[in-house]
Amino acid sequence: MDKKSRVPLYLQLMEDLIKKIEAQAYRENEKLPSERELCDLYDLSRITVRQALQELEREGFIYKLHGKGTFVAPKSYNQNLVKLYSFTEEMKAIGKKPTTKVMSFEEIAVDERLASKMNLGPLDEVLQVSRLRLADDEPLMYETSYLPKKLFPNLTKNDLEQRPMYDVFYEEYQVNVTKAIERFSATMIRKEEAEHLRMITDQPAMLIKRFAYHNDELIEYTISVARGDKFDYTVELT
Amino acid sequence: MDKKSRVPLYLQLMEDLIKKIEAQAYRENEKLPSERELCDLYDLSRITVRQALQELEREGFIYKLHGKGTFVAPKSYNQNLVKLYSFTEEMKAIGKKPTTKVMSFEEIAVDERLASKMNLGPLDEVLQVSRLRLADDEPLMYETSYLPKKLFPNLTKNDLEQRPMYDVFYEEYQVNVTKAIERFSATMIRKEEAEHLRMITDQPAMLIKRFAYHNDELIEYTISVARGDKFDYTVELT
Repeated sequence: MDKKSRVPLYLQLMEDLIKKIEAQAYRENEKLPSERELCDLYDLSRITVRQALQELEREGFIYKLHGKGTFVAPKSYNQNLVKLYSFTEEMKAIGKKPTTKVMSFEEIAVDERLASKMNLGPLDEVLQVSRLRLADDEPLMYETSYLPKKLFPNLTKNDLEQRPMYDVFYEEYQVNVTKAIERFSATMIRKEEAEHLRMITDQPAMLIKRFAYHNDELIEYTISVARGDKFDYTVELT
Repeated sequence: MDKKSRVPLYLQLMEDLIKKIEAQAYRENEKLPSERELCDLYDLSRITVRQALQELEREGFIYKLHGKGTFVAPKSYNQNLVKLYSFTEEMKAIGKKPTTKVMSFEEIAVDERLASKMNLGPLDEVLQVSRLRLADDEPLMYETSYLPKKLFPNLTKNDLEQRPMYDVFYEEYQVNVTKAIERFSATMIRKEEAEHLRMITDQPAMLIKRFAYHNDELIEYTISVARGDKFDYTVELT
């Protein structure tokens, strides 16, 4: 640390720690030295060390576990929100092996609200499918989809475990997705999802509602919960 | 409730409660009947009521406070991520009065990491500005921006409280934003921000990093924290 520099000390410390994380001197999920140890190592005050750690946590480089210490955050997956994306394709592109576990697969009659959303009549049926999405066997997203049965009458659980859903739609039913609208919000992981995603309850998660259309017909409504520590989403605005 | 319907009972209950919320029979932040009361009111089992409430929470219609009960969620602000947006303009468009409080305004020397991000030299200075954004006096976002001093040499705290930042950039310095890249992730609110935003600590928040460009020059780097219960973001994919 250069105590004469006009660069604030906490920024200098941040920079040094980021360099070490990027050089993998500290590896993913490795414990960092404690606040006290960092004070000694860098000859800095507690307040400076704490500010640097807070900023590093805010920027997603580290995470804290109550009573356990501070750890190097695993790299998160960045999803570029310019075009329709597929979990399967995105994971393959970065060399991860994507898999899908169908957790439930049910036919239900739609309630009025879903029927009007999906432009269905009161007698129409919907497939309610919950899927866990994994990369290299690590669970990352939990998705619940509603699909009109009349569009995909013979869809099976097995179809969805073997192929990307949109491939099945296209190959078996000649239905392709031409547009999707997604709504993002920050939420807290719930108990049931936390178990599937192997997270601690009350951690942040991204909630994504997807409305997918073939021309102007809604063919899929999906609520996804993505691990907050594992995903970020990029959009370019002009 | 129609117990003979093929529509699951929890969906029927959800629908009924949503109708009441939308008709303002239950108002924003009003307490809903307890689980036990809902069981009696609708003649439903505890498990059905619980599932309906969980789904309503997941979809953002209600929120729970530990030990206090279940409440109607306030409507959230939806931000459409297709074009550059301005907090001020968006709030005016929905009839809210936007205000900005500058919480800190400092000149700092940039550290190496920020300098390389912003294409600055080691002697260049940066303005570090933290702003609280409010609508009808309710705090909604906490933003920390880094701006190259050489581009905006006479910028004052007052400028940023009186006019939208991009108006100041353009009117005083003839610099307009031609492109911005935003990265979204779900996070937990931190103590300092929770106080500013009048939230309880450990609630979910959206973390947004904005990189704004004039042609190919980075003119602003901003980290925003938006209340998770107040904002969602929509993007259309094709």
